[in-house]
Amino acid sequence: MKKLFVTDLKDMTGESVVVKGWIHKIRKMKGFAFVILRDKSGVVQLVIDEGEMLDAISHEATVEVKGKVGENGKAPMGIEVVAESLKVLGKTQYDLLPFAINGRDIDTTLEKQLDFRHLSLRRADRRAVFTVQAEIVEGFRQYLRGQQFAEIHTPKIIASETEGGSEVFTVDYFGKRTFLAQSPQFYKQMMVGAGFERVFEIGHAYRAELHSTWRHLNEYVSLDVEMGFIDDEYDLMELEEDLLKFIIVHLEKSCAPELELLKVELPKIDKIPRMPLEDARDLLLEEFGHPSPKGNIDADGEKILAKYIKEEHGSDFVFLTKYPAAKRPAYTMPDEKHEGMTKSFDLIFRGLEITTGGQRIHDYETLVKSFEAAGIDPKGIDFYIESFRYGMPPHGGFAIGLERITMMILGLDNIRHATILPRDLNRVTP
Amino acid sequence: MKKLFVTDLKDMTGESVVVKGWIHKIRKMKGFAFVILRDKSGVVQLVIDEGEMLDAISHEATVEVKGKVGENGKAPMGIEVVAESLKVLGKTQYDLLPFAINGRDIDTTLEKQLDFRHLSLRRADRRAVFTVQAEIVEGFRQYLRGQQFAEIHTPKIIASETEGGSEVFTVDYFGKRTFLAQSPQFYKQMMVGAGFERVFEIGHAYRAELHSTWRHLNEYVSLDVEMGFIDDEYDLMELEEDLLKFIIVHLEKSCAPELELLKVELPKIDKIPRMPLEDARDLLLEEFGHPSPKGNIDADGEKILAKYIKEEHGSDFVFLTKYPAAKRPAYTMPDEKHEGMTKSFDLIFRGLEITTGGQRIHDYETLVKSFEAAGIDPKGIDFYIESFRYGMPPHGGFAIGLERITMMILGLDNIRHATILPRDLNRVTP
Repeated sequence: MKKLFVTDLKDMTGESVVVKGWIHKIRKMKGFAFVILRDKSGVVQLVIDEGEMLDAISHEATVEVKGKVGENGKAPMGIEVVAESLKVLGKTQYDLLPFAINGRDIDTTLEKQLDFRHLSLRRADRRAVFTVQAEIVEGFRQYLRGQQFAEIHTPKIIASETEGGSEVFTVDYFGKRTFLAQSPQFYKQMMVGAGFERVFEIGHAYRAELHSTWRHLNEYVSLDVEMGFIDDEYDLMELEEDLLKFIIVHLEKSCAPELELLKVELPKIDKIPRMPLEDARDLLLEEFGHPSPKGNIDADGEKILAKYIKEEHGSDFVFLTKYPAAKRPAYTMPDEKHEGMTKSFDLIFRGLEITTGGQRIHDYETLVKSFEAAGIDPKGIDFYIESFRYGMPPHGGFAIGLERITMMILGLDNIRHATILPRDLNRVTP
Repeated sequence: MKKLFVTDLKDMTGESVVVKGWIHKIRKMKGFAFVILRDKSGVVQLVIDEGEMLDAISHEATVEVKGKVGENGKAPMGIEVVAESLKVLGKTQYDLLPFAINGRDIDTTLEKQLDFRHLSLRRADRRAVFTVQAEIVEGFRQYLRGQQFAEIHTPKIIASETEGGSEVFTVDYFGKRTFLAQSPQFYKQMMVGAGFERVFEIGHAYRAELHSTWRHLNEYVSLDVEMGFIDDEYDLMELEEDLLKFIIVHLEKSCAPELELLKVELPKIDKIPRMPLEDARDLLLEEFGHPSPKGNIDADGEKILAKYIKEEHGSDFVFLTKYPAAKRPAYTMPDEKHEGMTKSFDLIFRGLEITTGGQRIHDYETLVKSFEAAGIDPKGIDFYIESFRYGMPPHGGFAIGLERITMMILGLDNIRHATILPRDLNRVTP
């Protein structure tokens, strides 16, 4: 087993070591070559004499090298390994490489990078995206665990559609027509009521949406949160604000090299401004001449608004509050003080919606009536509705799209860059 | 928002507090009642005078209670809250309760517990199972993160079957016939080759197996591990041994109350014995007169063997090694020293297989030949096979079924007890 990463060699001058990794670059000199060896931690310079060892290697092959660590001020980390023996572990068919791994930039299309994901991720700058993503997830978990949230795993094969609409994938379940969950919405609510009170889930969600854009995926990772015994939706916005602050601090601590490599400046979060949707629509129309669709704002509106909020309030984030009931699922808590409105919100981050959340109806009769009014037969989702007969606490929650927040934090221009192996309208491989 | 859990009240004698939770038990006295209030942390005694407040409550309703904390040696934690005001947050239709929540035991069938999961989990002893499960997952992550493993999320909708066999669920993906992943096997290997070197994934896996037993689920959570630059499969067994030790220590630290409630003694792990499968088969036949199926041992054999290992070696675990190639997937590394055998293993824990693992073939030509020999056309899985053309490191890994390890650690008699909402042959709700 590999015991050493190449960055561990820094302080090992004079020692004999075994290193394993990929051949990143070969620079032939007179009688020898400088060879850059790469592993997940970084790169180190090898010195390999002409002969069998040098003849055996090619770019991107995996090798095991024994040698002694010496000083070299011109090499990465100021050291190099003088190779004494070398074994090729995994051959490469170099002539087939679809793009170079060791260039300054990856000189190919996004499509090709995705077709050859096992190669494009060999670049440190591509892999760094997923290091940051993993730490977003870790920060999410650490914060919520610290606040007594229980981590749950709920089914993705479900008997009824949860969010309504026809945008669901169907699964043949032993001859029965079932669906892939669009979200763990019903189950996370049920688990709050089952006594966990506070739950989170990190899991796949599925949307059979027929559009292919820079910000949509048909399979994505949803960071879901649900909390019982809240007073109203402002408790949830406060929770999400604190959660995001924690995640940003966690990224600062855990991903400094990756953020530097990707030239990313983390957003500052102080107090996230809150603005009723109606005010945002008015502002867009009156200040910017930008009309919005009924009961919402559009993607361009989100961008204009984000720019305005950044300039006026210095914030990369803004909560839009009080969405109309007609635009929210039937389980959304009505706002008794604002006719036709709900206790719900979206979070816009640098011009893109990354969260939808809100308080839910917890009273059985109110919930049944709300579904009926929306034209949904409660009998079709009785497994969910019935759980409201037994003392549900007031509750609510939100979900953050993992790939979306990754993309926006890192300033990527397409959500596919923030997905190891994306699934979209045209892509179900690799 | 709820600020206090009832167990926080221990040291608050004399203070005025607001508590929120479920009405667990009502014991009427003369002129007042002792009411036990339950939340996720535990229970506390309320004292409620006869009158409106007492009339308003029923078992399992959610309430908000203001009152003063007083001492009472006979009450849980030695304290009680004398109620000054009470608000019902969520009503209950008590006459519909399918079983009592506050009895010593839950006096109903497993089926009914699963039908009413939102109620059966209100029992602390049922919820404790998932607290332990969440900490198994946390221990798994903490250990692997500490060993430089990267957490990844790979697609569950896939274009080709990964493990062979017909036991896959099909998904209609925009008119294309696709499948639910039986495991992240191919993708975790590809990500090792993509430069992550060491990866883990916590995600759902799907098996359309047509049997309904105490130990099978059709949707389960797989704890997957894959590691590059290994020497052989013994590196993986060492890794899993250390991982399991870490998880057990983590559970000791994080789940003491739950383990006590469930009367569970954690397994001790020292050195896990390793035994070639052939020896285990011989032993079963010669010592116990128990014949085994070709190239494997059966469920009864696993139990007999586990008992033997426990008595002879004092271990709850045993690795069975060197499975025949005919019984392993085509990507499994052959054992050149043992004709027809592979560098693979199973881990048996208290008589149940909880892990399958092994070294994988990393050489392109060998892999193609192995698939062809198994009658599988490599072209059908070219997205996977092609990645072996570019310097794959020697690698291997394993997977632990989360529900299985939870069940076996806690001594549950059915895997459905270790699943919040199980999916099996007969059940796709709630």
